[in-house]
Amino acid sequence: MVSFESDYIAGAHPEVLKRLCDTNMESLSGYGADFYTDSAKKKIASALGDPDAQIIFLTGGTQTNAVVISSMLHDWEGVVAASTGHISVHEAGAIEHSGHKVLALEHCNGKISASSLERMMEDFHNDGNHEHMVFPGMAYISHPTEYGSLYSKKELYEIYSVCVKYSIPLFIDGARLAYALMSRKTDVTLRDIYELSDVFYIGGTKAGALCGEAVVFSKHNMPKHFITCVKRRGALLAKGRLLGVQFDALFTDDLYFRIGAHGIDMAERMKSIFHKYGLRFAFESPTNQQFIILENSLMERLSEKIGISFWEKHDDFHTVLRLATSWSTSESDLEYLEKAISSIS
Amino acid sequence: MVSFESDYIAGAHPEVLKRLCDTNMESLSGYGADFYTDSAKKKIASALGDPDAQIIFLTGGTQTNAVVISSMLHDWEGVVAASTGHISVHEAGAIEHSGHKVLALEHCNGKISASSLERMMEDFHNDGNHEHMVFPGMAYISHPTEYGSLYSKKELYEIYSVCVKYSIPLFIDGARLAYALMSRKTDVTLRDIYELSDVFYIGGTKAGALCGEAVVFSKHNMPKHFITCVKRRGALLAKGRLLGVQFDALFTDDLYFRIGAHGIDMAERMKSIFHKYGLRFAFESPTNQQFIILENSLMERLSEKIGISFWEKHDDFHTVLRLATSWSTSESDLEYLEKAISSIS
Amino acid sequence: MVSFESDYIAGAHPEVLKRLCDTNMESLSGYGADFYTDSAKKKIASALGDPDAQIIFLTGGTQTNAVVISSMLHDWEGVVAASTGHISVHEAGAIEHSGHKVLALEHCNGKISASSLERMMEDFHNDGNHEHMVFPGMAYISHPTEYGSLYSKKELYEIYSVCVKYSIPLFIDGARLAYALMSRKTDVTLRDIYELSDVFYIGGTKAGALCGEAVVFSKHNMPKHFITCVKRRGALLAKGRLLGVQFDALFTDDLYFRIGAHGIDMAERMKSIFHKYGLRFAFESPTNQQFIILENSLMERLSEKIGISFWEKHDDFHTVLRLATSWSTSESDLEYLEKAISSIS
Amino acid sequence: MVSFESDYIAGAHPEVLKRLCDTNMESLSGYGADFYTDSAKKKIASALGDPDAQIIFLTGGTQTNAVVISSMLHDWEGVVAASTGHISVHEAGAIEHSGHKVLALEHCNGKISASSLERMMEDFHNDGNHEHMVFPGMAYISHPTEYGSLYSKKELYEIYSVCVKYSIPLFIDGARLAYALMSRKTDVTLRDIYELSDVFYIGGTKAGALCGEAVVFSKHNMPKHFITCVKRRGALLAKGRLLGVQFDALFTDDLYFRIGAHGIDMAERMKSIFHKYGLRFAFESPTNQQFIILENSLMERLSEKIGISFWEKHDDFHTVLRLATSWSTSESDLEYLEKAISSIS
Repeated sequence: MVSFESDYIAGAHPEVLKRLCDTNMESLSGYGADFYTDSAKKKIASALGDPDAQIIFLTGGTQTNAVVISSMLHDWEGVVAASTGHISVHEAGAIEHSGHKVLALEHCNGKISASSLERMMEDFHNDGNHEHMVFPGMAYISHPTEYGSLYSKKELYEIYSVCVKYSIPLFIDGARLAYALMSRKTDVTLRDIYELSDVFYIGGTKAGALCGEAVVFSKHNMPKHFITCVKRRGALLAKGRLLGVQFDALFTDDLYFRIGAHGIDMAERMKSIFHKYGLRFAFESPTNQQFIILENSLMERLSEKIGISFWEKHDDFHTVLRLATSWSTSESDLEYLEKAISSIS
Repeated sequence: MVSFESDYIAGAHPEVLKRLCDTNMESLSGYGADFYTDSAKKKIASALGDPDAQIIFLTGGTQTNAVVISSMLHDWEGVVAASTGHISVHEAGAIEHSGHKVLALEHCNGKISASSLERMMEDFHNDGNHEHMVFPGMAYISHPTEYGSLYSKKELYEIYSVCVKYSIPLFIDGARLAYALMSRKTDVTLRDIYELSDVFYIGGTKAGALCGEAVVFSKHNMPKHFITCVKRRGALLAKGRLLGVQFDALFTDDLYFRIGAHGIDMAERMKSIFHKYGLRFAFESPTNQQFIILENSLMERLSEKIGISFWEKHDDFHTVLRLATSWSTSESDLEYLEKAISSIS
Repeated sequence: MVSFESDYIAGAHPEVLKRLCDTNMESLSGYGADFYTDSAKKKIASALGDPDAQIIFLTGGTQTNAVVISSMLHDWEGVVAASTGHISVHEAGAIEHSGHKVLALEHCNGKISASSLERMMEDFHNDGNHEHMVFPGMAYISHPTEYGSLYSKKELYEIYSVCVKYSIPLFIDGARLAYALMSRKTDVTLRDIYELSDVFYIGGTKAGALCGEAVVFSKHNMPKHFITCVKRRGALLAKGRLLGVQFDALFTDDLYFRIGAHGIDMAERMKSIFHKYGLRFAFESPTNQQFIILENSLMERLSEKIGISFWEKHDDFHTVLRLATSWSTSESDLEYLEKAISSIS
Repeated sequence: MVSFESDYIAGAHPEVLKRLCDTNMESLSGYGADFYTDSAKKKIASALGDPDAQIIFLTGGTQTNAVVISSMLHDWEGVVAASTGHISVHEAGAIEHSGHKVLALEHCNGKISASSLERMMEDFHNDGNHEHMVFPGMAYISHPTEYGSLYSKKELYEIYSVCVKYSIPLFIDGARLAYALMSRKTDVTLRDIYELSDVFYIGGTKAGALCGEAVVFSKHNMPKHFITCVKRRGALLAKGRLLGVQFDALFTDDLYFRIGAHGIDMAERMKSIFHKYGLRFAFESPTNQQFIILENSLMERLSEKIGISFWEKHDDFHTVLRLATSWSTSESDLEYLEKAISSIS
């Protein structure tokens, strides 16, 4: 069945897979001490324009969020995130499992604002009794957000400025960063992300890898003895090459950006189809996830023809659905989608 | 350089890699809800002779140990392991990170004995003050052990009997299980492992997979809501297919057992070479890890020619080295090894 | 300075202190295995009308909340609480430190409603993706709440019914339970609390003890090996007598209830004074904590004369203050308060 | 029954209790922000000869060990302790519950040696693979030890020197420090303890307080935002005065030292009695805990007459018993003991 269920329905991008095959029989040291891991780090550092960027590869998104946040927070701190943020809702409490609170901030279309962050910081530090409260010790945003929305460069700059003012790190969850960077509605580059944050990750799993996320620390922020911190959290792969080789491929010949661009192209065509058939959008998303509102019986008929994701109940009679594109979405998939929509309209 | 540094120096076994390539473009649901994960579970259950075996795939060894142990222990319990066990020494405190103590038991060549386990259980329950102590709540053994040694079926039976008597689960770390099962010195089968334990894992990373360990719960022991427990520990892959496809291949046409057998064949030839050149063995190992004692200057010369692993200091003048074989070890690798040894003798 | 800063400004009620003095030289076993601890448990059980009530004494409120919640929750669960609940805001993340999320529920005057709890439970279980979310595994309410408000028997019954329907325990934080039970606006008795919950605690620290909270499990809910669970959380006193003796005194001749009644009498007089001088109440509180809104300069003048607690900013020009009564509040304290208010009016 | 079961069988020393009574009705701020807590800190600082000593009061021993160790260790570190240390064996895994491993070191009569500590540090840092191991990040000793033994000033100096060399803090558990300082066989003063450690605690519970331990950080070692760290571990008392008043009394007119001296006097007389009746000592203890070996039937007859503590099995026919003195032991208690021993001899 043609599926738009998510951006992780296919395996690896052919160029990534080819690299895995080509290097398969080489003897390489374990735990990330191999040539390809090193090469991938250099290529990413080069894309960031900073040979001193500190990079490490982890396996998946929840793992990355939990490892980074719990390693960087102080004992007395929690992490501030949109109430709709992935770490707030859909990671089964992985951050709390590490002993830290997620301090929820109101959101607008999945985004937090610099002003609401600043108000939280101010209120906290003005409250005489704050010794009995969790200190807001890090800000977390996802880009794109869980609703597909994007921060503008100005918004990012303002949020980062609040973080700098209060001396807390800004962590950007880039699980779908490829699709953010190549959106037609963005002025934010990879280098902007690097400069306007303290740590972020370049998502591989949802952008052409079998698994893998590249964590990037700017400003020499990598926690001390980080390998050991990663190991004790069960997040260190013996065959670190699996991650190194894939990211080496993703950062060869701009593959990561080509993947993002293709996903965006397909998403824009998908939007045209929805517009053509007069479907309602739940949110305006300039990235690879699209959210539409369907009457429940139409939703059921559509879900018999194509793979879609139930997102949330809209009201008693309507449902919000998510359809995602990715590097693996083809033109014929979209033709199939159009036919399916046409048949239920 | 030809390397015997470990059994995770190569990528995936060609049959595993081929399956990843063949299935790469299929659209599959995430988080383990895909056809191949299901198929792999069925094939493993069939190899175990129990369609009700509960199976889940995780990514790496330390992760698997931490997830299984911390999910199965009660609040007031710790896990008993050999003082040389992987969880006791080489996992950077991953078990303690989950809040639980590793209760160290004396070892003999990496193995614990039923009698020392029973003594620990007896002493604990006879001590009037035991409410102030960590309850021994699970026994952990590795098979093969970290020294390459194996439990006999009788030993395994006796250890399991102590566990049954005291109502604690037995967990067998099978990171290198393939090489245990195919050793020429074992009477323990995969079905024995299943019957004589409460939970164990079939190691993939060190036996032909890029990553992946198959956790098997017998006697319906899988903890409730285990997927959520796995997720909050950051151990749930979005592309669960990566693990499912690989284990589906490993359990097709007995590949897992062929891999073990090849590793053992190569290890036996390696032993012959060591014997031929009169090298001293640190321990007698019937599996794919071999441990020899070399005078330090010889060790350094050897390490310039082939990849080996420093294991531990033997005395001020000698060192214990580990050399491991695997599915990827070839006859020409061994010829190369023999030449290297010959040249330093 | 006369102070209404809190209900823990004085030492122990004289009858409690006398009992500590009278028993001081007796030789008693440690860790709660003493005569007075046993006697106190029996007296509480008798007040509850159930000789099988399971009771244990802990030292303070945050400790009690963390120990009870983390011992009763399953691995995959969090605790539901009002967004204003003590565990949500003012315990420095003690619950998250134990690895569990506090799931915030909207509040009205510090109280949650059965309907909002039910909606949360329904939504959770209807969401197909709930395996990736924290399971709501316990409901927590405080009685009185942090705003001094009380649940009616009907409200309590409805909340407990939702808990029973979804098989989650209800935990009632009774840090100030004495003042709830003796409020003039309540129909809830101690036995109702016991029957309409799974676990609750009878606060001592804020009702006449130097320290100490009596945790009561109904329906045989005490977790297995609870003493060990308490010990490993650092919450087991060597001289358990300190808690036992105090609660033995508190439950002799209805002292606990007399303490509550006196606190309420004083609070009602305090309210009359506020009414007389036309002060605005921030919330309507039928218990020992009263909240008034003062213009900022008046607040500062008042705080020079008596001890008060800054509660929260009301607007740019006004502040909410808290004044608490307790067993130690005297008529002359109130006269002093009236003079102070009169002088700034 | 006359009891030597432990040094926490009685309530508070009369001078401590009197101070609690005298100050009972004063209105004092909570959470340690009161006059007596401040006064107690100043008196202790004065006894240490350093007005900058950082002091905080906690409630019990296990709590203190867990709070101090988990607040001072880095993420990747564990604490080194004698295999017989209280944190290794008798705290129900409280340190592991905080996520950190206790690294066991061999002991001699309850003590570790500087040389074995140094060997552990050396071995760790020489091991190329140490990134996969728990870093030894703090040394813990108890003084007196669990066997009643004492470190000499020279031994303490040597252990501390190893800690300084490897830049790890030394933490001294002083649960029974009073009896160490006043032993007739010691050359270690309170100021030595302060100078030769990074943090230690002055035990109150076992030396005349109802509860309470004074944690002292030297060299400005108190962790940042320590009050919040204490609160989130459930260890902050609302009525901090309870601890402050008691330590204020304990450090008035040298009460703490008088308590220690009395306990030691009584212990020396107890030893004379044991010698007189030819009883065998299990260890030579110069402090308030004495350990004797009795034939099992004698042990049972003795335990019918006086309160004693079963320590451990000596062999199939003999048992090691512990008898402890304290400030509350009287001459008539010892006469009673002598009669009891005489009657079973």
